[in-house]
Amino acid sequence: MSVTAAAGFAAAGVTAGLKKSGGLDLAVVQNLGPLTSAASVFTMNRCQANPVIWSKQVMKDGVVSAIVLNSGGANCYTGSIGFQTTHATAEAVGTQLNVSAGDVLVCSTGLIGEQLNLGLVTAGVFDASKALKTADATGAEAGLAAAQAIMTTDTRPKQSEHHSPAGWTVGGMAKGAGMLAPGLATMLVVITTDAVLSSAQLDTALRHATAVTFDRLDSDGCMSTNDTVTLLGSGASGIEADEAQFTAALVALCADLTLQLQGDAEGSGHDVAIEVRNALSEAEAVTVARAVSRSNLFKTAIFGNDPNWGRVLAAVGTISEADAAFDPYGIDVAINGVQVCTAGEPDQPRELVDLTPRAVTVQIDLHAGEATATVWTNDLTHDYVEENSAYAS
Amino acid sequence: MSVTAAAGFAAAGVTAGLKKSGGLDLAVVQNLGPLTSAASVFTMNRCQANPVIWSKQVMKDGVVSAIVLNSGGANCYTGSIGFQTTHATAEAVGTQLNVSAGDVLVCSTGLIGEQLNLGLVTAGVFDASKALKTADATGAEAGLAAAQAIMTTDTRPKQSEHHSPAGWTVGGMAKGAGMLAPGLATMLVVITTDAVLSSAQLDTALRHATAVTFDRLDSDGCMSTNDTVTLLGSGASGIEADEAQFTAALVALCADLTLQLQGDAEGSGHDVAIEVRNALSEAEAVTVARAVSRSNLFKTAIFGNDPNWGRVLAAVGTISEADAAFDPYGIDVAINGVQVCTAGEPDQPRELVDLTPRAVTVQIDLHAGEATATVWTNDLTHDYVEENSAYAS
Repeated sequence: MSVTAAAGFAAAGVTAGLKKSGGLDLAVVQNLGPLTSAASVFTMNRCQANPVIWSKQVMKDGVVSAIVLNSGGANCYTGSIGFQTTHATAEAVGTQLNVSAGDVLVCSTGLIGEQLNLGLVTAGVFDASKALKTADATGAEAGLAAAQAIMTTDTRPKQSEHHSPAGWTVGGMAKGAGMLAPGLATMLVVITTDAVLSSAQLDTALRHATAVTFDRLDSDGCMSTNDTVTLLGSGASGIEADEAQFTAALVALCADLTLQLQGDAEGSGHDVAIEVRNALSEAEAVTVARAVSRSNLFKTAIFGNDPNWGRVLAAVGTISEADAAFDPYGIDVAINGVQVCTAGEPDQPRELVDLTPRAVTVQIDLHAGEATATVWTNDLTHDYVEENSAYAS
Repeated sequence: MSVTAAAGFAAAGVTAGLKKSGGLDLAVVQNLGPLTSAASVFTMNRCQANPVIWSKQVMKDGVVSAIVLNSGGANCYTGSIGFQTTHATAEAVGTQLNVSAGDVLVCSTGLIGEQLNLGLVTAGVFDASKALKTADATGAEAGLAAAQAIMTTDTRPKQSEHHSPAGWTVGGMAKGAGMLAPGLATMLVVITTDAVLSSAQLDTALRHATAVTFDRLDSDGCMSTNDTVTLLGSGASGIEADEAQFTAALVALCADLTLQLQGDAEGSGHDVAIEVRNALSEAEAVTVARAVSRSNLFKTAIFGNDPNWGRVLAAVGTISEADAAFDPYGIDVAINGVQVCTAGEPDQPRELVDLTPRAVTVQIDLHAGEATATVWTNDLTHDYVEENSAYAS
């Protein structure tokens, strides 16, 4: 169901011819109202793609009527021609759906430094808009087609939905398999809800939810130039959601999509949760976990089913005292439940650790405070190297 | 020649039985004087191995009579037993060479979190000390044996020497193939000179030299717990070196060893020099170059001979404005001499770039100032994944 699970949304996914594979590659999600609430978070990369530059302007008034997304090209580092392509895409959607181009978000994903074919994009927008006007556009098939159209190296579409007992619904779709390291978000995500909430309320809830979900997925340490997470509100349920309940549902939905992204990360063999316990603050716990998630030596060891806890501590040790408080010789490490290191010395034999399952949990106890955080990452595998060395060709 | 190139030094490399392979695994370099000048730089990792903790104490008075180095075990995260092993190693060297244990540096390299076998180490020290007392100990073969004894995953020993027209000599050996990312240094290096220089003079020269050589080698972004670069001065030439001339020679020698380390980095297929030009400061140039050197997506692209300049700019964009000044849409990128991006837009076709040679140069012009710096890195390959997933087993 994803983006069409909530009332008041139509979706379409079509083949515009942008992807060499010939699959679905252009999606439009339309907010049918009555509200046009919206919030977005964007990549913190200073090199931002043209659709990000455009969409930041669109989001300034918190009014969004539709969002158009394409795979097959990032439209990043494509200069003024690339920006004109983004602008023309929004204009085409505006014309077809009879809304203002200034209320149309644009997202693109694919190779950096190549121009998108505007003719193909415009024809795709025309086809998608036609589909949006059919009765099927608010159904599950339409949502699935949109989720498929934003896939790049993803092997499967990512969708999630939550129905509140209070009567409102939130649903979403995500794409992302490489370049997964959050600046704010690291993927394209569209979430829709029919709860009655203002753009400001959506913004607060979305920033909270992304900070503890997408922001803590760090598959390969690489931050994208195009990432956008958007939450659209139609108000079509007519029900004013309790903000705390809505935020909790949104966090759960974003966490579900985050784990779907982790499970489909390029070439990955393991899903690794790095739990840092008893840090001085949640921010310090994230800093420590992220350092481990970015250690290629740790990640190759996990690929080799090698519980090399020395590489965990070597990564932790790269963090300055200003960034996280801990006694480097007072740390405990457990891998998949086996405490291999206690207070900086070997404890249980590493041979006891079973790393054959896909799911791996590394627990790091800093003994420095009471805060906890988890960062999700993947192992570094032959398939990752293969997939990313062949991406452009 | 390496550490025995300069007068006043004896070296030995023996098989203590620490390495599973059965090769040379313990080296001792003795300063025969008349001076006992010395300077060291150590890893900035907060998780420091026992030999680093010990050697920092030894270096406090700037007097070093000998240095003992072993492969086959890092003696890191081995607690008080591990520290006793380091201490006993220095005592054994002191007894055998009739010097104070407090003037004996200890370096270890290998797996973290496993105890070293003190009996094997002590017997190795005994054998090495016997060899040091022979006439051959100041010759080239002895220097080579020492350089071989510190190898881990290195495929070849690394040595360098420089003979000044002024009459003094500087020579050195290095080991390091993985975990190459500098905190100060990222490997074990011993450099010797017979120039007449105080410990303070050696310290100034060494810090300058490592900052622009070993510190700018970032093969895999992982900082070791054991790295030590030591410079020993015997004064045996009787010649007071001009400090500027000595520093220049030391920089050249360290640069030579740095490039040898790069060329033998674990599983690497390319040696990549990332030159950042026209930065506001040298520090900002290093920051930008290092961000690119740590991008797995960039490194896998180079492995695949893919001149994917978008991944260069995506990595540059992760740097905050506080850390480096530049207009993200005003950057030029050239790869192996082909300007593929000018002012953030595609320039020459990427197909013109030939990435088949081992040597790759990426030039990034920030147009923000006049400072320049180069960071050396490697590509991310199947062999890197293979070698590091199998290291502990």
